[in-house]
Amino acid sequence: MNLIETLQWRYATKKMSGKPVAADKIERILEATRLAPTSSGLQPYEILVVTNPQVKAEIQKIAYNQQVVTGCSHLLVFAVWDHYTVERINAMFDLTNEIRGFKNEGWESYRQSLLSTYPKRDREENFQHAAKQAYIGFGIAITAAALEGVDSTPMEGFDASALDELLKLKEKGLRSAIMLPLGVRAEEGDWLVNLKKVRKSREDFITEIK
Amino acid sequence: MNLIETLQWRYATKKMSGKPVAADKIERILEATRLAPTSSGLQPYEILVVTNPQVKAEIQKIAYNQQVVTGCSHLLVFAVWDHYTVERINAMFDLTNEIRGFKNEGWESYRQSLLSTYPKRDREENFQHAAKQAYIGFGIAITAAALEGVDSTPMEGFDASALDELLKLKEKGLRSAIMLPLGVRAEEGDWLVNLKKVRKSREDFITEIK
Repeated sequence: MNLIETLQWRYATKKMSGKPVAADKIERILEATRLAPTSSGLQPYEILVVTNPQVKAEIQKIAYNQQVVTGCSHLLVFAVWDHYTVERINAMFDLTNEIRGFKNEGWESYRQSLLSTYPKRDREENFQHAAKQAYIGFGIAITAAALEGVDSTPMEGFDASALDELLKLKEKGLRSAIMLPLGVRAEEGDWLVNLKKVRKSREDFITEIK
Repeated sequence: MNLIETLQWRYATKKMSGKPVAADKIERILEATRLAPTSSGLQPYEILVVTNPQVKAEIQKIAYNQQVVTGCSHLLVFAVWDHYTVERINAMFDLTNEIRGFKNEGWESYRQSLLSTYPKRDREENFQHAAKQAYIGFGIAITAAALEGVDSTPMEGFDASALDELLKLKEKGLRSAIMLPLGVRAEEGDWLVNLKKVRKSREDFITEIK
């Protein structure tokens, strides 16, 4: 399948079989997500990969009891920086210098520009900005999963505060933003699987300015 | 190249050659983005595809004079709903019924649930939620471009209000969120092309809960 056929094949799976997804497929999905671009290269989020059945069951309770939370093989939780701090910005700029093996004047001046603006911005504004970067990675994770033939379910429907508490995210300065169960669709019982995919027409989605 | 190699190949291109990208490649990138999932299937954004040189030049002025805005072949502007309104929600639910050919009680009850909550929420909260959906499509657009061998540059650095005015987005109830120039990297003069890609290690990015 090419990419378009793959994206037509995928759908928000509503019932998963509990079957495991091969570890190498999961690794490639995570690696694709790790490679996703983010604003200023800050990568302001992390991913928790939940396979523990008890933890999944606890999460299901705070996620409208959706079957895929326990029916999936691996549950990805995208956990976003609650704030852009001086330490976090410096850590990513230092990592850049370390990997590239040199300090660059332009880059150091860009570091100072971020240090003088981001940490003093409103925390919620910073979280929203960071969360958007996680959604870029989320889009790539969905695509990577589909290309591996792995089913997934984009999920915003859960009690984020309760999840933060359960996974002890607050202590780490993180907030859960979105989840992606990865698994194998159930052979029956999924109300969505046979319904047509609905998208706006190209005409309603695209405007050309020639 | 497989997906991982493709994502290693891509980078935020800083100088483009002005060469055109083939129309069929652009169409496949747009189609992949159209197929991106969104919360409740509302698809709360549109894409403007700018190829007009004068319009590109105007946009470059309000985008820190970044070369890729005029050096690219096609400039994608992701324009997001400024609010979830009753009309917009109904239009997407009606479209769903039309495409699937039937009305479903559960789906109609879900429509009522959104109608009774989204339109009365704060406009900025709604815009932020809608913008995140656009970022999922943005991640897929970047991936689709890379798989086509097309260079791209994720861009948040522009004056969004000025762009909204230039493209008359406000009248349409839209706000620009992010841009993606698509084009061909220049043969020389790009400071970033030969620098190593920097990402957090897997250890710092992934936490497993087994």
